[in-house]
Amino acid sequence: MSEAPEPHYERTVFYVSDGTGITAETFGHSLLTQFGNLPLRQVRMPFIDSLEKAEEARRRIDAQAMLDRYRPIVFSTLVETAINEVLQGAHARFLDLFATFVEPLEQELAMRSSHTIGQSHTVANAQRYDERIRAINFSLSHDDGQSEADLTSAQVILVGVSRSGKTPTTLYLAMQYGVKSANYPLIPEDFERRRLPEVLYQFKSKLFGLTITPERLTEVRHERRPGSNYASLENCRYEVAAAEAMMRREGIPWLSSTHKSIEEIATTILQELNLRF
Amino acid sequence: MSEAPEPHYERTVFYVSDGTGITAETFGHSLLTQFGNLPLRQVRMPFIDSLEKAEEARRRIDAQAMLDRYRPIVFSTLVETAINEVLQGAHARFLDLFATFVEPLEQELAMRSSHTIGQSHTVANAQRYDERIRAINFSLSHDDGQSEADLTSAQVILVGVSRSGKTPTTLYLAMQYGVKSANYPLIPEDFERRRLPEVLYQFKSKLFGLTITPERLTEVRHERRPGSNYASLENCRYEVAAAEAMMRREGIPWLSSTHKSIEEIATTILQELNLRF
Repeated sequence: MSEAPEPHYERTVFYVSDGTGITAETFGHSLLTQFGNLPLRQVRMPFIDSLEKAEEARRRIDAQAMLDRYRPIVFSTLVETAINEVLQGAHARFLDLFATFVEPLEQELAMRSSHTIGQSHTVANAQRYDERIRAINFSLSHDDGQSEADLTSAQVILVGVSRSGKTPTTLYLAMQYGVKSANYPLIPEDFERRRLPEVLYQFKSKLFGLTITPERLTEVRHERRPGSNYASLENCRYEVAAAEAMMRREGIPWLSSTHKSIEEIATTILQELNLRF
Repeated sequence: MSEAPEPHYERTVFYVSDGTGITAETFGHSLLTQFGNLPLRQVRMPFIDSLEKAEEARRRIDAQAMLDRYRPIVFSTLVETAINEVLQGAHARFLDLFATFVEPLEQELAMRSSHTIGQSHTVANAQRYDERIRAINFSLSHDDGQSEADLTSAQVILVGVSRSGKTPTTLYLAMQYGVKSANYPLIPEDFERRRLPEVLYQFKSKLFGLTITPERLTEVRHERRPGSNYASLENCRYEVAAAEAMMRREGIPWLSSTHKSIEEIATTILQELNLRF
């Protein structure tokens, strides 16, 4: 756990939650990207689920306020009113993500919210959760063409040259959306035969292709196998061109992973294949 | 892509975004869990990044409003004012996640936000992104004690009996937090020797244990190998008790994965091991 020396920060952002804080953090990050690359120290404060922990969190925020040049910003998804009130007393700009929208929702749904911590552990969520775990296991056992068993139950089968981004995408599809996906590499033997791996023809409606620029591919492959023919720009050019030609010939929808994040690739695939979630 | 018949919904929730919509959806889900298990149809509308797409999205929402008993709810993270305005005209309860907090932030930071789509592709984010991909590859190649190479660069090493939740947790740590983690199974041979796998002793400060109730473990293992001794309740009881005794003896911090989500397990581990993000 080596640590680089901390850069100079003039302000701290706290993500405070009675759960994991992932919602507060995802949301806060996405807002802050609108302000460019600000030098902000970011601190996660998850599991603040008692008054005692709330007091402790408040003291930590107040202490930081004394040290920094500017007062902290707090993104909160705290649910319980009493806990929330403690944090609202901190010397900080308090952005109450939860309460701000709970009231309009209560109005619109004509019902009171439960204001209860830990609602994520309901039966419906437990089922959704088991689905995600099953999807992750499915992705792992169907990674890189490892298994042809049970491909019938795959919802997506990704194809593309080695290192085009298939594995992270299948894992993300499973983790975020509970989608079962397999992936198959397209390799030089397939290009010579001018055929997809035979097993894939019966699942053509589930196929989705990933491609990548040869320049990016050679970089990625050199990290794995420096100096190999596999990683050479010339070979990457050949493989990418052959794979794209094959996908075009076979009518497989595809996209380039080069300038996209895993999240964007996964979401685009769901949209293109019209998968329900 | 078989589909179950759709349950009867009286209302639809739309997640509208110029990006993936993952922020809007994460946030919307977490708010809606406060209202119990409502029968809401949920529709993701990602990549609404032009006026044309905005008009189309608006038409779709309006059409749904005619079909449902209650008007739709829209969670929006649209950044561009003109696009946002189109959607605000839809016949729906419009919750503007973005604008609501951008103004207080502009005030607090004493600067204008860029109001620009696609801010996630900055240089800083690209670096963070490459780190995540490297962390995913690291987790995959150090899954289930596969490799002892390069364990020095692991930030966490999870230990626990087979099927206690180690793999999904390491993948989540990589995907969400860019944390490099390895995992090692504790197996009957280790319990007989009353020693951890030898390679782990030099990395003791990085170890974190996962446990699980024998009742849940037998369920999970029966899914994988029905009727095996491996999955039997008796064997699960033995392995869990032996693993917990070993972790206690070796002073390894641990938690039970039984009633926790992957997100909760991962966040707790980061907190306990004090990893920066």
